[in-house]
Amino acid sequence: MIIQLSDTITSLQKDALLNSLSGLNIKSNEVKTQFKNYIIGIPKVDFDIRTIGNLDGIEDIHRVSDAYKLVSKKWKINRTIIDLGDDVTIGGNELAIMAGPCSIENEAQIENTVQHLLKNNIKIMRGGVYKPRSSPYAFRGLGMDGLKLFYKHCKENGIKVITEVMQVSQVEEMLDYVDVFQVGARNSQNFNLLDVLGEVDKPVLIKRGMSGTIEELLASAEYVFSNGNEKLLLCERGIRTYENAYRNTLDLNAIPILKEKSHLPVIVDPSHGIGLRQHVATMALAGVVAGADGIIIEVHEQPENAFSDGQQTLYYEQAEELYRKAKVLFQNI
Amino acid sequence: MIIQLSDTITSLQKDALLNSLSGLNIKSNEVKTQFKNYIIGIPKVDFDIRTIGNLDGIEDIHRVSDAYKLVSKKWKINRTIIDLGDDVTIGGNELAIMAGPCSIENEAQIENTVQHLLKNNIKIMRGGVYKPRSSPYAFRGLGMDGLKLFYKHCKENGIKVITEVMQVSQVEEMLDYVDVFQVGARNSQNFNLLDVLGEVDKPVLIKRGMSGTIEELLASAEYVFSNGNEKLLLCERGIRTYENAYRNTLDLNAIPILKEKSHLPVIVDPSHGIGLRQHVATMALAGVVAGADGIIIEVHEQPENAFSDGQQTLYYEQAEELYRKAKVLFQNI
Amino acid sequence: MIIQLSDTITSLQKDALLNSLSGLNIKSNEVKTQFKNYIIGIPKVDFDIRTIGNLDGIEDIHRVSDAYKLVSKKWKINRTIIDLGDDVTIGGNELAIMAGPCSIENEAQIENTVQHLLKNNIKIMRGGVYKPRSSPYAFRGLGMDGLKLFYKHCKENGIKVITEVMQVSQVEEMLDYVDVFQVGARNSQNFNLLDVLGEVDKPVLIKRGMSGTIEELLASAEYVFSNGNEKLLLCERGIRTYENAYRNTLDLNAIPILKEKSHLPVIVDPSHGIGLRQHVATMALAGVVAGADGIIIEVHEQPENAFSDGQQTLYYEQAEELYRKAKVLFQNI
Amino acid sequence: MIIQLSDTITSLQKDALLNSLSGLNIKSNEVKTQFKNYIIGIPKVDFDIRTIGNLDGIEDIHRVSDAYKLVSKKWKINRTIIDLGDDVTIGGNELAIMAGPCSIENEAQIENTVQHLLKNNIKIMRGGVYKPRSSPYAFRGLGMDGLKLFYKHCKENGIKVITEVMQVSQVEEMLDYVDVFQVGARNSQNFNLLDVLGEVDKPVLIKRGMSGTIEELLASAEYVFSNGNEKLLLCERGIRTYENAYRNTLDLNAIPILKEKSHLPVIVDPSHGIGLRQHVATMALAGVVAGADGIIIEVHEQPENAFSDGQQTLYYEQAEELYRKAKVLFQNI
Repeated sequence: MIIQLSDTITSLQKDALLNSLSGLNIKSNEVKTQFKNYIIGIPKVDFDIRTIGNLDGIEDIHRVSDAYKLVSKKWKINRTIIDLGDDVTIGGNELAIMAGPCSIENEAQIENTVQHLLKNNIKIMRGGVYKPRSSPYAFRGLGMDGLKLFYKHCKENGIKVITEVMQVSQVEEMLDYVDVFQVGARNSQNFNLLDVLGEVDKPVLIKRGMSGTIEELLASAEYVFSNGNEKLLLCERGIRTYENAYRNTLDLNAIPILKEKSHLPVIVDPSHGIGLRQHVATMALAGVVAGADGIIIEVHEQPENAFSDGQQTLYYEQAEELYRKAKVLFQNI
Repeated sequence: MIIQLSDTITSLQKDALLNSLSGLNIKSNEVKTQFKNYIIGIPKVDFDIRTIGNLDGIEDIHRVSDAYKLVSKKWKINRTIIDLGDDVTIGGNELAIMAGPCSIENEAQIENTVQHLLKNNIKIMRGGVYKPRSSPYAFRGLGMDGLKLFYKHCKENGIKVITEVMQVSQVEEMLDYVDVFQVGARNSQNFNLLDVLGEVDKPVLIKRGMSGTIEELLASAEYVFSNGNEKLLLCERGIRTYENAYRNTLDLNAIPILKEKSHLPVIVDPSHGIGLRQHVATMALAGVVAGADGIIIEVHEQPENAFSDGQQTLYYEQAEELYRKAKVLFQNI
Repeated sequence: MIIQLSDTITSLQKDALLNSLSGLNIKSNEVKTQFKNYIIGIPKVDFDIRTIGNLDGIEDIHRVSDAYKLVSKKWKINRTIIDLGDDVTIGGNELAIMAGPCSIENEAQIENTVQHLLKNNIKIMRGGVYKPRSSPYAFRGLGMDGLKLFYKHCKENGIKVITEVMQVSQVEEMLDYVDVFQVGARNSQNFNLLDVLGEVDKPVLIKRGMSGTIEELLASAEYVFSNGNEKLLLCERGIRTYENAYRNTLDLNAIPILKEKSHLPVIVDPSHGIGLRQHVATMALAGVVAGADGIIIEVHEQPENAFSDGQQTLYYEQAEELYRKAKVLFQNI
Repeated sequence: MIIQLSDTITSLQKDALLNSLSGLNIKSNEVKTQFKNYIIGIPKVDFDIRTIGNLDGIEDIHRVSDAYKLVSKKWKINRTIIDLGDDVTIGGNELAIMAGPCSIENEAQIENTVQHLLKNNIKIMRGGVYKPRSSPYAFRGLGMDGLKLFYKHCKENGIKVITEVMQVSQVEEMLDYVDVFQVGARNSQNFNLLDVLGEVDKPVLIKRGMSGTIEELLASAEYVFSNGNEKLLLCERGIRTYENAYRNTLDLNAIPILKEKSHLPVIVDPSHGIGLRQHVATMALAGVVAGADGIIIEVHEQPENAFSDGQQTLYYEQAEELYRKAKVLFQNI
């Protein structure tokens, strides 16, 4: 049960409400976000919702039987739009495109990518500075030095930055240099990280886990929301199956399902999904038709020389064709 | 290695060729299809292809290192078009749409469906008369009586019939009443059935197995082709994964991959794929964008009363909207 | 609901019973096996079982809510023992061991294997004469000629034969030359084959499908049983997962679960399960501890020269050590 | 390539070695653990190992082509034994048993469990104080207060403590109150956490991820080892598959494979594996036969009242029977 509190609720009214809930054997979780105050009530037995509904200081009450509550569409019918400022939004009437290299490599590469994005009117650049790698001996990213350079060049050119955060201690140091925090597939159930990202006022994109269920992804989003951050994006990036013909099995079924169950925008990542350059654009377009609000793709001036993920990274010309087609398709479905 | 024989090859020339192959320690498999004669050579060691290439009676030679040979695109660049007669083709410049109920139930239902198809200019009707059911106590289809009624009504109205064949003994009795044989997911590696279907002159649509790999699907198609039947369609219908939010995980990655590896047309089955009526049309359209040559969908006048699979079956109005959108999309990608 | 009919039930009594069931809106399936007559009732709504229970001609009635009925332990508490004659049983107080090559190759190999089995007091020989192969160009077995040789040598030496049947038409021709029919993983849901195997009086071992669920395996067994054959064995042989470190993921969890849900004996196949010779014995022993009634393993005088599956086939000495250990372990758990 | 440095290597000798490696285009990673100094060389091209082998200050050199190096058995033949002090070891000639509740709930429960362990001569107690829960509204553990109580009671009774650590910041605060850090399935690729655990001198048990491969588990262990901590345990706890008859699919194949590939001890967790109380003991015993060096199980005085995981938690009597059988079985295989 989600109880939206009135903005004018008094302490006395709130105490009365919490007492009523307690008397009904309902566990209360107070949630204060950037926008609203809520109480999430987890009832142990059935009860008559009217006994609460007429208390003072309540704006609205919704029963939500799913394990996830605040991210559910059962409660919030209108779709969430994420506003990154400077007229850059995700989840609205325009397809959001996030493009850039797998890893930030050096300043020249950043500049080069920024020019590519400017030329194509792409407003969000992706790029990793902290890289999760299965081997400890592999390149693990440029870290904060890379991020600062990355952010500086983007900022100067009106481009927003999305980059992966891997642990709690990085959140604060990265905060001033990102526009969207990305939580990777391996951290999709790193609950401490999700807790802390719930306390900041920057949007968070959460990727589905390697073998994460739809329900788990929504529950992970609930972690962030219930800690105070409503600015959330969900991302399908491929799941692990028995099939070895592609890197991961991009699961486009997840897109209509997530949009049915949740009010949050959904992004598709075909680069990690199918993981084969020659098919990335096709899967991106299929993702748009499946209902994605945005696409996140890997692009590099010279994919064959990229520090990581070269085999799934588009050449500029390939990416440009994709941008054009994706925008047209998004407007025509 | 695929050796295409000249139409004018003589017995002496062929003997000479077989002798040469044998001398090179290459195992020969002679394949005679509706269109051509081939020898599939499986070499045990490396050899110089020129020693064969200049023998008489050979039209062309192709090295194909994959486990599948004749269905590979490495050998045949031009895409295969399946001609069902009366200007109904699959794999060409028009999207093939196959629609109809999960199970053929009675004559009224057949007529009703035929009218729906005629109204929408759909040329191929699907419908099961032999139903694979996990429980022996469930409805198993109307059998040959149902098929004869089904075929009669379709034939009278210029509509082609696709229906599932489940075992070898059914092939002959069904032969005069089908336009396309369908091999279901559970029979995707029923090699005896595939052998026999290779001996008839009717197209065969092979569904990917429940947990079938791309490679296995192509090898199953190779069974049919190498027995003499070049008229083949491949079908993605969802795989089995850990995710329970949908019936199966429709794997659209398979479509660009199959079209890259094989010259055969690829059909997408979103009804069994996602298995939820409200998302079937979305996934069908995503499948078209992913490169499908056709879609096969379940439609019923009253899905809630269907003998089987009602929850994934479209209402007529839903289907009509899908037909329109799918045709437009196919022409614009 | 399972109604066991009395051996002395009269036609009039049976008609009265069927009428009662029909009146209660219960669909009846009559089952006549080697041992008993049953009626499987599938009720559409709830009803009072006492209204049937006091009719004449009924021996016993059991409610079974699972999709599978006759193979369920809810109905038959005592474990089923399969009697192959000559004091060879499966499911009793001795571990059943079935050993032999993947493929029957020639008479010398059969004789050699028989001597190995005799030396070790193993009573059941496995060996394939019809081989399901993903490629049509691979060796597909010696067929009936091989089977006749195989059976002759075994018969002369008091050894029972288990071999795979791949299609309906083979059942009759193989019938006199097998002691146990084996249904392979790819045919685990070949319902026509299961139907026909239900009509013969030879035991049937059904392997779990590549990605078959426990429930599906039991439903496949129900097909055979409900067609009249109670002599059934279930076999865990590994499932398909994302893990590539082994051929299949031998799923030992299935053993205690199958023995909890069904009264049928359970056999473990570690050769196909883990698929690596050096670990086959370990997994066989773990399977025994997990509760298997028997093991089926691949053994060959010279595994490196076997026609198929050599990498998972034991040398004689390895097998002999396994036989000894497995028998001891079985008696001590 | 692993270069074990001599304990008496001089700075000059080490510089010469690093220079040689650099000259050979080999990337060097210096590793200093509790026991030894190593250089892990990642060569870009093939080279003659003798050019390095005769330099001074080198104790031994091993080629290891796997992605993981220091945890590989190719380098270290002798199995690793983890010494927890007070004669409690893991990986030696005795089966290690770790038992206790899923969650630490209160002091009475700790005492009660300790008495149960003392009675059965079990030396290691498990219990969670930081609980990863998919829902933010679920019980998340007693935290440090619970851990201090847990450790105090165990310490007083000569029992070692194993408990889960979920994030970097917890490592330091937990350090004095744990004997073994446990990394849960969801954190199996939390590389920052693994890095930090590599810097402490306490053993670390790493669970395989939800859909983790064998190779990924070993690479995660390599993270800890290459940061300086050789005291490592690997744990199989069930993987995620399509099968819903059990909580997870306990993958016993992993045990012989991990013991073949690595010198580290392997623990089996049947409680999370099969997740059904009535089968936990059976799977634990099967795990012992498969080669596990230890078992970790959930036990509670009143499983039905446990704060979490009650359905997979053993009653004391069940656990006691398991302890007895497991110890006997371990000595007899």
